[in-house]
Amino acid sequence: MPSSRTCVVFGGNGFLGQHLCQRLLTDGYNVRSVSRTGRPKGEVQSWWSDMEWIKADLGAEASRSAMAGAEVIFHLASSTHPCTSNSDAVFDLQSNLIGSVQMLKRASVSGVQRVIFISSGGTVYGVPRQIPIPETHPTDPICSYGIHKLAIEKYLYLFRTLGELDSIVLRVSNLYGEHQNLDKPLGAVSHFAYRAATGKTVEIWGDGTIRRDYIHVDDVVNAFRKAITYRGPERVFNIGTGRSVSLNQLLELIGQRVDRRLQVTYAPARGFDVLDNALEITRAARELGWTPSIRLEAGLDRVLRSSLCVQQECA
Amino acid sequence: MPSSRTCVVFGGNGFLGQHLCQRLLTDGYNVRSVSRTGRPKGEVQSWWSDMEWIKADLGAEASRSAMAGAEVIFHLASSTHPCTSNSDAVFDLQSNLIGSVQMLKRASVSGVQRVIFISSGGTVYGVPRQIPIPETHPTDPICSYGIHKLAIEKYLYLFRTLGELDSIVLRVSNLYGEHQNLDKPLGAVSHFAYRAATGKTVEIWGDGTIRRDYIHVDDVVNAFRKAITYRGPERVFNIGTGRSVSLNQLLELIGQRVDRRLQVTYAPARGFDVLDNALEITRAARELGWTPSIRLEAGLDRVLRSSLCVQQECA
Repeated sequence: MPSSRTCVVFGGNGFLGQHLCQRLLTDGYNVRSVSRTGRPKGEVQSWWSDMEWIKADLGAEASRSAMAGAEVIFHLASSTHPCTSNSDAVFDLQSNLIGSVQMLKRASVSGVQRVIFISSGGTVYGVPRQIPIPETHPTDPICSYGIHKLAIEKYLYLFRTLGELDSIVLRVSNLYGEHQNLDKPLGAVSHFAYRAATGKTVEIWGDGTIRRDYIHVDDVVNAFRKAITYRGPERVFNIGTGRSVSLNQLLELIGQRVDRRLQVTYAPARGFDVLDNALEITRAARELGWTPSIRLEAGLDRVLRSSLCVQQECA
Repeated sequence: MPSSRTCVVFGGNGFLGQHLCQRLLTDGYNVRSVSRTGRPKGEVQSWWSDMEWIKADLGAEASRSAMAGAEVIFHLASSTHPCTSNSDAVFDLQSNLIGSVQMLKRASVSGVQRVIFISSGGTVYGVPRQIPIPETHPTDPICSYGIHKLAIEKYLYLFRTLGELDSIVLRVSNLYGEHQNLDKPLGAVSHFAYRAATGKTVEIWGDGTIRRDYIHVDDVVNAFRKAITYRGPERVFNIGTGRSVSLNQLLELIGQRVDRRLQVTYAPARGFDVLDNALEITRAARELGWTPSIRLEAGLDRVLRSSLCVQQECA
């Protein structure tokens, strides 16, 4: 057990960040989160006091002391979402790309052994030429978020090639799970589940035929844990399930579980939404020994139970 | 003749910029240059008064009025060089990538019909897996300059895909020609030629076996002119000669022409120099109807005559 090992999670107070931090604590790590807002929002959790919550911008000087003595850095921080990034690409680049390069430069002289970075399996490839999409697929994003993620990957490659910093890139597909966003229109599974649980109308962009590869947060957390100790030659991995379902199928699966048809309004499609996305995951299986273990149906059951709990304040 | 057509050249006062502006004037365009320093430095040329020289940062608000009424934008501006960009990647991104995105956003609402962007055939591909390098080769730069060029290409793709702005990307190899840099260590051909003409010692990084694809500026200017009217489906083109020569071969070719062996000192190799680079140019030949016309030997004769003129102040 790595009882004296320290890791830093940039963006540790977000959805994935909290799931990862909690699990790293269980694994025996000293855990520090660095984020713009410090401690997570919402109801205080008992495990929050077992770790440090540092309030600092990604690119800020304060991140240097936060990294002191750390062996592994997880970079999950992002100030934008795919669906908002095009409206202010300059802010997207300023906060995410430049902030990341500043942080990585500090990491390269801090003694950190490895950076594990969450990239975007849903946006870096752009419009897919094949499904499922392998890691070798061309990378032509159609949103600024995908470009900033890709550019960070390129800097990580540069630092690796110049011998300055080791890193692993996980291109994660559409993440979902308990305690995600809830009533914000980010993360279709959690949003739909919450709307279903509360009897509200769901609004979707397009005609509902858009397909996504939904992966449960616990599976993603396990991919990050595998990446800590991986010693093989690969550095970029798709993390998804390898299959996609449409928004309409998702609505149907949720409807079956709440035992009624969901109310849906259809808004015009958005230009930056690709029609299909499913990630080829044989590389992660072969190299990391990682495969997803939670089927969508089982994951939906968990999210719906959690959403009903939130609604009934049983959490 | 496009007598009333206006084009804007960002970076028009640089080496390639001046050659391009002068040719566009001859072609009958109204030409405006936008750059951080305004008019070019050095001895005043008669054609300078035939065009506008606007002093403004790439990303500045002033670029909006500069683009008013323009049909074509040439984007040649860069505040960094491949060999300096890694030392301050944040400045590289701030000035070049963010500045470009700000400019392109303005271009997209200005009525400009096309942006023609100079990318870097020498750095966007990183370490080549095959020679000559086709446009479909993976793009993994090992210097920040290559990453910012690639990221600008990605934004141009995004704007094209969203229907906001048409563009052509020319990935140009190692440019040389008369009136380049002279005694600065940028552009091996011109630097070596000037040192040879002035009898000074040449310093090179590594053992001289590094190979580059040297292309004369007049050939590159013609590729930009072809890109204005191209109506085919491709958007990214390599512009080079398709063959590479080593620094040692280059020194020998120059030595033959000045009739003496050049004095050379060898400094340690730099990590961000790839060993070989030659661009596959069949796509440009097929689509643009462009091929290089100036052989290296003939180009060297021209540069050496020019360097000797500069030395003897006969220009």
